[in-house]
Amino acid sequence: MRFEGFEGKVYEAADLSPLRPNPPITTEDDNDNNGEELFVPPLNFAMVDNGVFRSGFPDSANFSFLQSLGLRSIIYLCPESYPEANNEFLKANGIRLFQFGIDGCKEPFVNIPEETIREALNVVLDVKNHPLLIHCKRGKHRTGCVVGCLRKLQRWCLSSIFDEYQRFAAAKARVSDQRFMEKFDVSGMKHLPIKFSCSKR
Amino acid sequence: MRFEGFEGKVYEAADLSPLRPNPPITTEDDNDNNGEELFVPPLNFAMVDNGVFRSGFPDSANFSFLQSLGLRSIIYLCPESYPEANNEFLKANGIRLFQFGIDGCKEPFVNIPEETIREALNVVLDVKNHPLLIHCKRGKHRTGCVVGCLRKLQRWCLSSIFDEYQRFAAAKARVSDQRFMEKFDVSGMKHLPIKFSCSKR
Repeated sequence: MRFEGFEGKVYEAADLSPLRPNPPITTEDDNDNNGEELFVPPLNFAMVDNGVFRSGFPDSANFSFLQSLGLRSIIYLCPESYPEANNEFLKANGIRLFQFGIDGCKEPFVNIPEETIREALNVVLDVKNHPLLIHCKRGKHRTGCVVGCLRKLQRWCLSSIFDEYQRFAAAKARVSDQRFMEKFDVSGMKHLPIKFSCSKR
Repeated sequence: MRFEGFEGKVYEAADLSPLRPNPPITTEDDNDNNGEELFVPPLNFAMVDNGVFRSGFPDSANFSFLQSLGLRSIIYLCPESYPEANNEFLKANGIRLFQFGIDGCKEPFVNIPEETIREALNVVLDVKNHPLLIHCKRGKHRTGCVVGCLRKLQRWCLSSIFDEYQRFAAAKARVSDQRFMEKFDVSGMKHLPIKFSCSKR
């Protein structure tokens, strides 16, 4: 089954069989005192809401952790092609990749494409894609904008949306991103079902 | 039913009837452009895992948001008594309060009581208490330590635990808290069921 009315790239995983969590990959550094394997979540990892996670770019050290989440989809917000090792991981775990290539421009040349954010949000809102991970490179700006727009749909006030955005962007927080979220019009999306915990409409 | 083997204070809410989400309280400032009521999550609010949230001290502006979470319990980590307005909110919504009075000492006089954190964790791990909010005053230190110890039980590596702790504590991050989490021994708690998303044991 393909996602209809979707303009980003869709990678169909060859193996869509049910996920069987594998034991975490063991390396000497990732063991605790009892010799147990430890999980390494990606940089800036957090739970956004039921079935929705966010992070920076995951690498192979994070794969066993991501496996434990039982992900069904990943939303990837950069234009660069997905690394081979990550593609292999998706394939082996039946995870579908939705890529929305948003350039990682620096201020004052930031131009966040509203329509692309809207399409990404449609994927986030579709519970058939859950559990789902949203990520860009550092999990700050592009990911922060998608999550901020989701919070708008969830009717969070702007100051709480910015508080959350800044927690992840920290010293790299951008007024232009916050202005984008402030201007983002959710009135056309209010027919969509929101089945989350963190405030329902 | 009372929580057994628990040394903190337990407030039994008079009304334990099923939660009926009320519409958010409307004030002029909390309306968006279309005159819709907006939610105001508490300072430093975030989802920790399925059915577990964290934040700073909630005040009346946050009540309608908290109501939308359908909370069953609150873990309050300060020794000061709970404000009357908050007690009223708990009563009206059938939310049980577990209070663990941990002093909010400043470095270098920090002494986090290990046994108290362990008891708070037992409440967090009991899914009968979910959905549950953990909060202290600012949602940085005491809340950060409880969440950090939970992550240890979930087998997160220390650098990811500290990354998360620092995201909330920001400029107020304390080496003493991080050392506490590093030393915290979870081996005696491994018999407890962990039914979360963010990595299972």
